[in-house]
Amino acid sequence: MPIETSQATDVRILRDKAVRLRIDSVLSTTEAGSGHPTSCASAAEIVSVLFYSVMRYDPRDPRNPSSDVFVLSKGHAAPILYAAWAEAGLFPRERLLTLRRLDSDLEGHPTPRLPFVDVATGSLGQGLSAASGIALHALLSNTGQRVYALLGDGESAEGSVWEAAEWISHRGLSNVCAAIDINRLGQSEPTMLEHHMEIYKARWEAFGWQALVVDGHDIPALLTAYGQAGRTTDRPTVILARTIKGKDLPDIEGKEHWHGKPLDKEMAAKAVAHLESELTGAENDWRPHLPSALPGAGKDGAAAKPATPPKPPYQFGGKPVATRRGFGDGLAALAQADPRIVALDGDVKNSTYTEEFQAKAPSRFFQGYIAEQNMVGMAMGLAARGHVPFASTFACFLTRAADFIRMAAISNLNIKLAGTHVGVSIGEDGPSQMGLEDLAMICAQPNFTCLYPADATSAWAATGLIAAETGPGYIRLGRPGAPILYGPEETFAIGKCKVLRRSEQDRALVVAAGVTVFEALKAYDELLKQGISIRVIDLFSVQPIDRAELAASAHAAGGIVITVEDHYAHGGLGDSVLAALAPERVKVVKLAVREIAHSGKEAELLERFGISSAHIVDAVRAAL
Amino acid sequence: MPIETSQATDVRILRDKAVRLRIDSVLSTTEAGSGHPTSCASAAEIVSVLFYSVMRYDPRDPRNPSSDVFVLSKGHAAPILYAAWAEAGLFPRERLLTLRRLDSDLEGHPTPRLPFVDVATGSLGQGLSAASGIALHALLSNTGQRVYALLGDGESAEGSVWEAAEWISHRGLSNVCAAIDINRLGQSEPTMLEHHMEIYKARWEAFGWQALVVDGHDIPALLTAYGQAGRTTDRPTVILARTIKGKDLPDIEGKEHWHGKPLDKEMAAKAVAHLESELTGAENDWRPHLPSALPGAGKDGAAAKPATPPKPPYQFGGKPVATRRGFGDGLAALAQADPRIVALDGDVKNSTYTEEFQAKAPSRFFQGYIAEQNMVGMAMGLAARGHVPFASTFACFLTRAADFIRMAAISNLNIKLAGTHVGVSIGEDGPSQMGLEDLAMICAQPNFTCLYPADATSAWAATGLIAAETGPGYIRLGRPGAPILYGPEETFAIGKCKVLRRSEQDRALVVAAGVTVFEALKAYDELLKQGISIRVIDLFSVQPIDRAELAASAHAAGGIVITVEDHYAHGGLGDSVLAALAPERVKVVKLAVREIAHSGKEAELLERFGISSAHIVDAVRAAL
Repeated sequence: MPIETSQATDVRILRDKAVRLRIDSVLSTTEAGSGHPTSCASAAEIVSVLFYSVMRYDPRDPRNPSSDVFVLSKGHAAPILYAAWAEAGLFPRERLLTLRRLDSDLEGHPTPRLPFVDVATGSLGQGLSAASGIALHALLSNTGQRVYALLGDGESAEGSVWEAAEWISHRGLSNVCAAIDINRLGQSEPTMLEHHMEIYKARWEAFGWQALVVDGHDIPALLTAYGQAGRTTDRPTVILARTIKGKDLPDIEGKEHWHGKPLDKEMAAKAVAHLESELTGAENDWRPHLPSALPGAGKDGAAAKPATPPKPPYQFGGKPVATRRGFGDGLAALAQADPRIVALDGDVKNSTYTEEFQAKAPSRFFQGYIAEQNMVGMAMGLAARGHVPFASTFACFLTRAADFIRMAAISNLNIKLAGTHVGVSIGEDGPSQMGLEDLAMICAQPNFTCLYPADATSAWAATGLIAAETGPGYIRLGRPGAPILYGPEETFAIGKCKVLRRSEQDRALVVAAGVTVFEALKAYDELLKQGISIRVIDLFSVQPIDRAELAASAHAAGGIVITVEDHYAHGGLGDSVLAALAPERVKVVKLAVREIAHSGKEAELLERFGISSAHIVDAVRAAL
Repeated sequence: MPIETSQATDVRILRDKAVRLRIDSVLSTTEAGSGHPTSCASAAEIVSVLFYSVMRYDPRDPRNPSSDVFVLSKGHAAPILYAAWAEAGLFPRERLLTLRRLDSDLEGHPTPRLPFVDVATGSLGQGLSAASGIALHALLSNTGQRVYALLGDGESAEGSVWEAAEWISHRGLSNVCAAIDINRLGQSEPTMLEHHMEIYKARWEAFGWQALVVDGHDIPALLTAYGQAGRTTDRPTVILARTIKGKDLPDIEGKEHWHGKPLDKEMAAKAVAHLESELTGAENDWRPHLPSALPGAGKDGAAAKPATPPKPPYQFGGKPVATRRGFGDGLAALAQADPRIVALDGDVKNSTYTEEFQAKAPSRFFQGYIAEQNMVGMAMGLAARGHVPFASTFACFLTRAADFIRMAAISNLNIKLAGTHVGVSIGEDGPSQMGLEDLAMICAQPNFTCLYPADATSAWAATGLIAAETGPGYIRLGRPGAPILYGPEETFAIGKCKVLRRSEQDRALVVAAGVTVFEALKAYDELLKQGISIRVIDLFSVQPIDRAELAASAHAAGGIVITVEDHYAHGGLGDSVLAALAPERVKVVKLAVREIAHSGKEAELLERFGISSAHIVDAVRAAL
């Protein structure tokens, strides 16, 4: 769908607006005493053209679902983003002077605390992936929205940019339009490509984009380029804007060593006087291009109410079922029940079993290929617009997206991650394929829910629980088949554990999860033969944790607690249990993987790395 | 330096060798009952040409420092790597049948437990970065080595591949030659580009490489292509090899759903019979192309002995100095003392102060630009060859390289990471720039040393300590200026804390590190006024941790411990202390950042997020 840029918009208006954006970027950063005015100044014409001519949006209603969307990937240019919305009328310009204050949501880098921000940026190279998620939403929901991303040139060195570039063109998302503010200077020195516009052009074209080189300070040229964007039927467009860092700031324009530095008051006054002298007053004539909802728009999954999902089908005594299978089955069952749900996978859908979801809801499944950062970034964009995206791959490969996960947490987005093949229990593939640090990565983020089911029934339930909860969530899933522990009527809750063995004679508490639950049950049997009764808990919910039950059980079992986990010792469930019991003056022994693992058979590895039933038995006996 | 491929090598030899590599890949995976024979079969001619014609190496001495280097980026093709070395004569072919066993180092994916592996692979998209680190080593050390990497086509979707591609061509590392085994099929479905060789070619050329498209099963064509590699003066070469997955395996060749599956015994027997019928016996005539050491080779930094580094210059009562500055100063001081050291930085050398190292040793400083994965990957390659690479950026951006860090740990490489700007104490830049999960990420890796200095003197010392220690190490560094706590004669050790306040009347122990040490000292003063004496520990070494001193001090202080850290609550130093004290039945109160942070001033944020001296005072009083 071609867009109609308003070539008729008076260029003088846009020029004035650009000047005012520069003024506000200087004033707010000088007032704050920190920030990136020069990175704003290079982008002033691009932002002016986008906000005051190209984009159709309601400046008083930034969450309007029909509005075009702007993603500031170069998040350190936050002051110009804030200035643009103030200039559009969303809030008074004076508020810009609260930049970077604890009592203001105009933070140093944008976060979704602000109604006009979809995803937090400021870690570079993430915005284009989020933009593609939003663009997918627009297609799924038939909103007709276009998505405009603004990147820096320095951030183009991030591989994630190329993951997004490849995926967007592969998918033919012609409703994405990126601009790169090629101001030649990084933080500490010039970029690799400086102003070699022809190299940028060749790279983006080779990645399947329509690439338009323009002078990024030339407003008519920018208008022409944006007019051309989307006019090809199937290609996304990138506008490669040659710019000058610190443009139009006296004594600073084009100079090195001015990254991330505010002007002092004297320089700021001089710059503002210079800039004000360029104003014509034309900017007061600006009127927004309001969006119009398309017929059928919004009648999409993202706005739907989920129905009650069906119950899991697994029966006691049947053949073992892997928890990853329970997740895949459960997600597929949710395909019908909850049309908000979409699934993304990193070329392992036949291992995560998200292929079952794809079979049920092919239009809501997205193959992310082997590009985990972009997969999570797309999920962030989809979540920002009301979908409930599940992104899945091996847990170890989610670490590839650790920085995206961090930013998703800062954004407090409703994304769901599923990590399979955790721990040494995957066996022969060896350490590179074993997720042994995923709990450390996920639980560090304070707003992430983290569930770790032991059998297929609880994995199915966990999938439904994190789908229904609002906020970021993670499910930890194993490779091997696991016996069915729970019947279809069993209920589970976030923040609640399951006490599997309990008596009045318990002399120690063993807390396990996933594959180690079965080791704990074996240890229970063995110890009972030896006349020692232990309490066994399936932790299930690692974060939030069932502090009350853990504390009560720990004291009931004589204040001796053994934790056992198929995860490295630091940052795993043992540490979560320790933290929960920190005030209790109990004794805790943590069994976990304490060295780099190795290929081998599942049972051998549990034994070799200290988390088998035999080790639990030994630990209990030693602790008594 | 152009290479001379031995066009004279009998093509029949190479063809036979390729057949034997296929046979061994089938036999070893069938014996193991798992593995990726089809991913080996597509690469058989490439590996044959490299190992038995192109590369100059000593097949009996895989660590020979003059040998050309092979990096298997597509690590799941491990069986053919092992087969290639067996075929070259390093070990008996029978050992291939121990593939994936706990008692064999022929693991599912390659690790440096094997003498012919530099870096562990198996997480895709990492090998090219490691190859560039090895290529840098070859240039620094004047060895004349060439580095050959083999990538898969699926992994080309990983952005890190493009980070490496850009950096290698930017640096003009023409001693790197990559091949991509473009077999069209990923794990779960065809790749994005399938066999569109012209798109691959356009992309790699746009990224500055000589790109040669060949039929990857055509041995003369491969020989010609490798002959052309390195003949351009300044460009690296990529050989884009069109291949068939499962090539020459009856009933499997070119078929989907055969990723990562061994043949059953019957199919394997059929395949081997078919393959054996192709052998001519020519392979027995093969002789290796031995390397010859260049004059001056090896007389390089990587082989040098470090001298004693100078003492830090900081004096009590002087102006506050940031710990990141202490690191930068200390690293620069090591530039002369330890020629093994090289430094890499992610376009923040003026924030991490590695620009000081650059000034002292410009030829050993490498600007990594904003591409943290590649930066860490290059460090892995440099470390594998004897250098001591320090890779630095903001701690939060090291999370971008979390998967590389994971693989560096699996590889047990001697890399050093420095993460600056940790915690809410960075202030106004806001949460996207705050490293609040780096301890969780780093300490989860069991072989990583993790030091967290509180002042510039200890930061300087920490830099020297991790440089001198062999193995992966991390230093956690703050942004704000810190008072000098320690004089230049103070000695520090890995695994040892510092007790800063101690008396016989201590009623609680406060364990802090970095910026919170000063909050703890303020709390000490305040509590003393209230008649409460506390013990204060500067933890310094988070991993390994000083368990003995912590336990003794905890008991001496009445079994009440307060930890306080500028890090999220999970996986930080509080959890390390809890784990160290787990057997002690003491009460621990953990003060840490428990929600998503915000922009603001340093002192405001310490207060707002619960880790200021006032919070410590309250916590101590509440715990008594």
